[in-house]
Amino acid sequence: MADVDAYDTEAYAAELDRRDPLAGFRDRFLVSDPGLVYLDGNSLGRLPLSTAERLAAATAGEWGGGLVRSWDHWVDLPRRVGDLLAGGLLGAGEGEVAVSDSTSVNLFKLATAAVDARPGRRAVVTDDDNFPTDRYVLESVARRAGMELRVVRTDPDEGLDQGALAAAVDGDVALVSLSHVAYRSGALADMGAVNEIAHRAGALVLWDLCHSVGAVPVDLEGTGSDLAVGCTYKYLDAGPGAPALLYVRRALQDRLRQPIWGWFGQEDQFAMGLAYRPRAGIERFLTGTPPVLALYAVEEGARLLVEAGIDRLRAKGVALTEHAARLAAAWLAPLGFRLASPADPLRRGSHLTLHHPGAAGMVAGLGRRGVVVDYRQPERVRMGASALTTSFTDVYRAMACLREVAAGAGDPAPSDTPSLEAAP
Amino acid sequence: MADVDAYDTEAYAAELDRRDPLAGFRDRFLVSDPGLVYLDGNSLGRLPLSTAERLAAATAGEWGGGLVRSWDHWVDLPRRVGDLLAGGLLGAGEGEVAVSDSTSVNLFKLATAAVDARPGRRAVVTDDDNFPTDRYVLESVARRAGMELRVVRTDPDEGLDQGALAAAVDGDVALVSLSHVAYRSGALADMGAVNEIAHRAGALVLWDLCHSVGAVPVDLEGTGSDLAVGCTYKYLDAGPGAPALLYVRRALQDRLRQPIWGWFGQEDQFAMGLAYRPRAGIERFLTGTPPVLALYAVEEGARLLVEAGIDRLRAKGVALTEHAARLAAAWLAPLGFRLASPADPLRRGSHLTLHHPGAAGMVAGLGRRGVVVDYRQPERVRMGASALTTSFTDVYRAMACLREVAAGAGDPAPSDTPSLEAAP
Repeated sequence: MADVDAYDTEAYAAELDRRDPLAGFRDRFLVSDPGLVYLDGNSLGRLPLSTAERLAAATAGEWGGGLVRSWDHWVDLPRRVGDLLAGGLLGAGEGEVAVSDSTSVNLFKLATAAVDARPGRRAVVTDDDNFPTDRYVLESVARRAGMELRVVRTDPDEGLDQGALAAAVDGDVALVSLSHVAYRSGALADMGAVNEIAHRAGALVLWDLCHSVGAVPVDLEGTGSDLAVGCTYKYLDAGPGAPALLYVRRALQDRLRQPIWGWFGQEDQFAMGLAYRPRAGIERFLTGTPPVLALYAVEEGARLLVEAGIDRLRAKGVALTEHAARLAAAWLAPLGFRLASPADPLRRGSHLTLHHPGAAGMVAGLGRRGVVVDYRQPERVRMGASALTTSFTDVYRAMACLREVAAGAGDPAPSDTPSLEAAP
Repeated sequence: MADVDAYDTEAYAAELDRRDPLAGFRDRFLVSDPGLVYLDGNSLGRLPLSTAERLAAATAGEWGGGLVRSWDHWVDLPRRVGDLLAGGLLGAGEGEVAVSDSTSVNLFKLATAAVDARPGRRAVVTDDDNFPTDRYVLESVARRAGMELRVVRTDPDEGLDQGALAAAVDGDVALVSLSHVAYRSGALADMGAVNEIAHRAGALVLWDLCHSVGAVPVDLEGTGSDLAVGCTYKYLDAGPGAPALLYVRRALQDRLRQPIWGWFGQEDQFAMGLAYRPRAGIERFLTGTPPVLALYAVEEGARLLVEAGIDRLRAKGVALTEHAARLAAAWLAPLGFRLASPADPLRRGSHLTLHHPGAAGMVAGLGRRGVVVDYRQPERVRMGASALTTSFTDVYRAMACLREVAAGAGDPAPSDTPSLEAAP
């Protein structure tokens, strides 16, 4: 840049936006309030224009017009959309990913399947930084199986301590389940290393990819990952409560059985046979009738990300959070903020978190000024950068606004508006 | 009617349509092909125009415009939509119904909760006429609990034999789970009588209302029902794969715990506490992030049904299937058809089923002539009457077409297009 010393100006941010090869993607999303600064795409991603069109067309044409006859091309949607995610964003193969149900339900299915596949073992391992729903599901699965849930202590800013994890994983462990990118700090776990720790002990690994799919490269095959789930309403821009992905490594599929035996997991589904016989392949992890319209939204969102390319998405995500971190160091550290994410951008995902005792009030104050970020317990401001829709100018304005609010005469107590971390 | 002898004419059907107090509702649905005769609303209901509008508005305005801030009014949707169904269609109270997840997943949750609530008992009871996904889920739940699944033999045309059921339900039974309206024959079970058989033995009852909600009056409270699930894409017209309802009688709610512990079932959800503590009330049966847009579709569909009133819907459903049965007796019995539904319209729901050895080919032949019905194993033509959208003329034309196809030179073998029984 011509004048690199001026990184803390809006002009500098605008120049970064001009040079951004992904900048044009923002025009392919609905931006109904151009003044809004939205750094919460990691909770709920923006609406792609193509999704609005696709939903309207499928609603009128396929549901309204085709009616039940449309099931001949709907019936394979969970797998078809899964294949798109697998090849484009997850480093997985065809037939290894399906999309249906919520992240929590998919976690339950795969965690139960994993525990059942390791009879005689008595423990499940997770960490205390894992997203709440993950911990609750694992608690339920472990308790139901008469197993212990070992919760590894994790630094809420720095992420997983692999030494502590290794110490917790012994021959008694059936399953290790962690988030790839921590929902609070954004700390990025080393999938390959964790898989190796678990596999050495004979345990399976179940990854939560909610904060990584579409934001950071995921190489399920290359890292030898066993199982994964992930939601689609964050970086995948598939809308509120859109269905979640599940991944099962091909070699494991025939050896695992999930517990919720529904007709979409049944061999020869329309014969409606008396006894349950699970289908071959990834479809055996399905259960009930899939949410057709929402699956189209997942497909549209995934297409945009695949078109942009995960490497460019990652590069921009790093640049955005680095820009935020740089401004935070200059402007906010003197006001009592502390970085609550790993300092190395390669060790975090696409969001950045700052700690300040007054964080809750500040998040509310930002909201009133048209800057949407998340408050996270305890005392943290979390800012998500969605590479397709977040600009460097957004980041600049959010940080400038946070400086103003923090320096100001104090906002009232935390908003009681729930700020949803889209399920895990 | 002026000329009652002429019931087997299209003019007679047209006269019935003119006198139908619900006829106007058809104009509130998308009917893009007026020539299509659609008797499959019990598999996938038609698209209400208000739903198309609501989905488009919520997509653009609440998702695209409001973004994550919209969660302040989205967060209660499962319960809000549940309350509408409870009071309007189910004979249940406020806070007894929620809508989220698929029917199969809800069955799994409630069946597991019921079995857990009856420790020491060793059996679950269902019947061999229950919908496949119900049988598979119950098989899974029973097996996982180390229990026996007792499958009562049921006449596939006449429905449940209460004597056989009573003989199967003893003090060892934790749960009885049946469909209120049989998916194949339409036979209507006597909820009060079944509840009494089960309760006398100390068992809980879990009803599948997929083929009854919106079609026949359901009085969960008056019949002393414990638990129920039901899908919303049939008579509720909520679209392909729309989320399912679940009902838990208020007095049972605090005594039951479901197995899939997600963050939407957690007390003080946004505190994201370490251990799972289930919420009070119906929300403890929720799990993951609910499918917002699809919930709006359920709400729109339910509003139409509530506006029409369940008694008028039921009366028209009876009249439609009675008209079909009358024409079948006159035209089709001589061609080898047999009624495969109870003959008494008060003992069946809103669909009618006919047996013929050539049923599969005939269903395909009807489809090619613009008449959509279902093929059901074995050898059955199933015709659904949706009181808001099915006309007497539709019924007339379908029966006339079936007569023509049956009398004709034989169609080719069964279509291999899957004909989906929307998951129960």
